[in-house]
Amino acid sequence: MEKITVTLGKRSYQITIASGLFEDPLSFLPLKAGNTAMLVTNKTLARLYLNKVRHTLERVDIHVDQVILPDGEQYKNLSVLEQIFTALLENSHGRDTTLIALGGGVIGDLTGFAAASYQRGVRFIQLPTTLLAQVDSSVGGKTAVNHQLGKNMIGAFYQPLSVVVDLTCLQTLPIRELSSGLAEVIKYGIILDAEFFVWLETHINELIDINPVAMAYCIRRCCELKAGVVAADETEQGVRSLLNLGHTYGHAIEAEMGYGNWLHGEAIAAGMMMAAHTALRLNQLSKLDVSRIRTLLIRAGLPVTGPKIMTPDSYLPHIMRDKKVLAGELRLVLPTAIGHAEIYTGLTKETIMSAVLDCQD
Amino acid sequence: MEKITVTLGKRSYQITIASGLFEDPLSFLPLKAGNTAMLVTNKTLARLYLNKVRHTLERVDIHVDQVILPDGEQYKNLSVLEQIFTALLENSHGRDTTLIALGGGVIGDLTGFAAASYQRGVRFIQLPTTLLAQVDSSVGGKTAVNHQLGKNMIGAFYQPLSVVVDLTCLQTLPIRELSSGLAEVIKYGIILDAEFFVWLETHINELIDINPVAMAYCIRRCCELKAGVVAADETEQGVRSLLNLGHTYGHAIEAEMGYGNWLHGEAIAAGMMMAAHTALRLNQLSKLDVSRIRTLLIRAGLPVTGPKIMTPDSYLPHIMRDKKVLAGELRLVLPTAIGHAEIYTGLTKETIMSAVLDCQD
Ligand SMILES: NC(=O)c1ccc[n+]([C@@H]2O[C@H](COP(=O)([O-])OP(=O)(O)OC[C@H]3O[C@@H](n4cnc5c(N)ncnc54)[C@H](O)[C@@H]3O)[C@@H](O)[C@H]2O)c1
Ligand SMILES: NC(=O)c1ccc[n+]([C@@H]2O[C@H](COP(=O)([O-])OP(=O)(O)OC[C@H]3O[C@@H](n4cnc5c(N)ncnc54)[C@H](O)[C@@H]3O)[C@@H](O)[C@H]2O)c1
Ligand SMILES: [Zn+2]
Ligand SMILES: [Zn+2]
Repeated sequence: MEKITVTLGKRSYQITIASGLFEDPLSFLPLKAGNTAMLVTNKTLARLYLNKVRHTLERVDIHVDQVILPDGEQYKNLSVLEQIFTALLENSHGRDTTLIALGGGVIGDLTGFAAASYQRGVRFIQLPTTLLAQVDSSVGGKTAVNHQLGKNMIGAFYQPLSVVVDLTCLQTLPIRELSSGLAEVIKYGIILDAEFFVWLETHINELIDINPVAMAYCIRRCCELKAGVVAADETEQGVRSLLNLGHTYGHAIEAEMGYGNWLHGEAIAAGMMMAAHTALRLNQLSKLDVSRIRTLLIRAGLPVTGPKIMTPDSYLPHIMRDKKVLAGELRLVLPTAIGHAEIYTGLTKETIMSAVLDCQD
Repeated sequence: MEKITVTLGKRSYQITIASGLFEDPLSFLPLKAGNTAMLVTNKTLARLYLNKVRHTLERVDIHVDQVILPDGEQYKNLSVLEQIFTALLENSHGRDTTLIALGGGVIGDLTGFAAASYQRGVRFIQLPTTLLAQVDSSVGGKTAVNHQLGKNMIGAFYQPLSVVVDLTCLQTLPIRELSSGLAEVIKYGIILDAEFFVWLETHINELIDINPVAMAYCIRRCCELKAGVVAADETEQGVRSLLNLGHTYGHAIEAEMGYGNWLHGEAIAAGMMMAAHTALRLNQLSKLDVSRIRTLLIRAGLPVTGPKIMTPDSYLPHIMRDKKVLAGELRLVLPTAIGHAEIYTGLTKETIMSAVLDCQD
C-alpha cells in the first residue's frame, strides 16, 4: 500500500493506493457507524463497482444513498449537478453528510463541486476509477462543471477528505482511456522529474499491461509530484500552471473536434508535442528531447500529431479564449528540457501556428 | 462617511456607508482604468440606479457589461445563475473580471455565488440597495441559490472585495421592505448589544423616516456587530449561529406561506417572538424583555404573531429539515436577555409548538 499526504494545513488529506481498497472499510475512515453518505457514480461504474462499495460501507453501518448519472463529458453540467442536489434533499441529507465520488474525472469534478456547494460545503471522498482521475483530477481540489460556452468554467477549489485508489479498477478500463491517463503521467515527467521520465521509458510496457507494482509506483509518484505543486500553489497563481503543459493546444483540439471524439489525454499528447515544437522553434528545447517525448507518447499508445482536419489557424480562437490568456496576452507552458518547464508570455500567433504545422502528418 | 473593516486575514475588506457613493468613482477602488466588470442587477433596480452606476464606472474607463435579471426570490436559482455565466462568457470575461451586485439580498446572493464559481472565483463588489442587504446579507460572505426543495441549499462562503452602501437608495425602497430590514436590525440588538437595543427604542421613528444620520449609524453598528461575529467564526461553527435567532421558526413561515407572501424580515420578526416565548417558557428570559422586544417590533411595522392559517404542528416538518438540526436533535437560538442569546439543544416538539401558540392572536 502506498500513501501520500497532500499538505494543505487544516485541509490536508491522504491518498491511498493499493489493490482491493474498495472492499476495505478502513478506506472510508473517518466515516463511522451511523454516518450518512451519498454515492455519486454513473451507469457504467454502477454496473461494475457500486454494489462492492455499498456493501463495504453497509458492513460498518454507514447509511448509503446513491445517485446514478448518465455517462459522459456532456453530462458534466449545471443541470446534472442539480440532480445531485435533488437526491441529497429528497433523502434529507444534512450538513453532516459525505459525498463519495465513484468514477473518472467527470464524476469526480461533478461530485466535488456538488460537495463544495451543497449547504455551502460538505465532506467528500474520491474513489477515482480511471488512470487520469487517479494521477490527476482527484488530486488538487479543482472541481468544475462545463458551460455550453466553455469547459470547466464553473467550479470551486475544494479539497476532499481523502482519495482512495483501488488499482483493480483499472482492469476494466478501456485501453484508450488507459493511454489517455498515461498522457498526464508522461506530462509530470516532462515538466517536473527527469528521473521519473527515464523510469517511464523503462517501464511503459508494464504500465500498459497494468502490472500492479509498476502501476502503484507510477500513480504514487504522479500524486506526489502533483501534491507538491498543489501544496505550493493551491489556487494556481504560479507554479501550478506548469501542469497545463499541452493543455492550451489540447483544449483547442477537444473543443474543435467535439468533446469525446478525442479523449482528453489524446488531445493533451498532441498538445504536448505542439508545445515541444514551439519550444524547439524558440531554441529552448533540444531536438533530442523532442524526440524522446515523441517516442514515449507513441509507446503509450498516444497520438503525436493533431487531427488532420484542423488547420493551424483553427486553433487560434480557442487559444485566445483560454483561461490562461491574461489581458489578451498569449501565454504558454513550454518544456525547456526533460524535467523542466516554464511559462512563456508574449508569443506570436505565427509561432503558435507554426508549431501546429510541425506536428502534422 | 462611515467605514468598517471586516477582518478576515488576506480576505479582509471594507464596508463604506454614505449618501451618494454610487456617484463616486472612489467607491469602486481597487478597480481601475482598463478593468472589466459585469454589473448584475434586476429589472426594478436597473430602472432606478443602473445608469448612475454605469456612468460612474465609465467615467474612470472601466469597461462595464451588464446582465439584468427578473425581480424576485423565485429567480434565485441555478438556471438564473447560469444566465450570469452565459453573459460573462458571451462577453469574454476572464479571471480578471469583477462582478458587481446592484440590488437586495437576492441579487447579492446570486452574484456572490456566481463570483465564487465563475472560473473557480473572480472578484466581487456588493452594492446593497435594501436595508436587509445593507445590514445583513452583504456582510459575511454567505452566498447561495435556492433549490425547489429548500432555500439557500446551494452556495459558497465567498467574501467580496468591498461593500458600498449608498444611503440614498433607501428613499425608493417600499416601506414593507424597510420594516423587513429593521427586523434584522432589531435582531442584532437582542442577541448582541443591549445598548444598541436601547438606542433603537429611542430612534426607531427616525429610522422609519430614513433620517440619514440615524440610518448611517444604525447600519454601521449592525455591520460592526455582524463583522465581529463573522471574523470570529466565518463558517458558522459556533457564535455565528446566534445570528439565526428567529430564523428557524421564520423559515417555516416563509416556506409554508410561499416565499414572497411573507417577507423574510416579517417572518423573522414573528419567529423572534416565538423564540422569545420559548425562552420565557424555559424560564430563560424575563416577561419584561419579551414585552420590550414585542413593542419594538410593532413600532418597526413588523408582525409579532405567526400567520393565522398556520397550526403549531405545521411548523415541525420545516423545523426538522432545518440546516441547524444536527443528527435529528432540535436546536434553537434563544434570547436569554436583551443583548444575549444562546444555543439550546434537546428541545422537545411540545415546547416548540407551545411557543407558536403563545404567539397567536
Ligand atoms: N479536476 C481536475 O483537476 C481535472 C484534471 C484533469 C481532468 N479533469 C476532468 O476529468 C474529466 C476526464 O476524466 P476521465 O478521463 O477520467 O473521463 P471519464 O470520467 O469520462 O471516464 C472515462 C470513461 O471511462 C469509464 N470508466 C471510468 N472508470 C472505469 C473503469 N474502472 N472501468 C471501466 N470504465 C470506466 C467512464 O464511465 C467513462 O465512460 C474531464 O471532464 C476533465 O475536465 C479534471
Ligand atoms: N447572504 C446572507 O447572509 C443573507 C442574509 C439574509 C438574507 N439573505 C437573502 O436575501 C434575500 C432577501 O433580500 P432582500 O430582502 O434584500 O430582498 P430582495 O433582494 O428581493 O429585494 C426586495 C425587493 O425590493 C426591491 N428593491 C431593492 N432595492 C430597492 C431600492 N433601493 N428601491 C426600490 N426597490 C428596491 C427589489 O427589486 C425586490 O423587489 C433572500 O434571498 C435571503 O435568503 C441572505
Ligand atoms: Zn489534463
Ligand atoms: Zn435573516
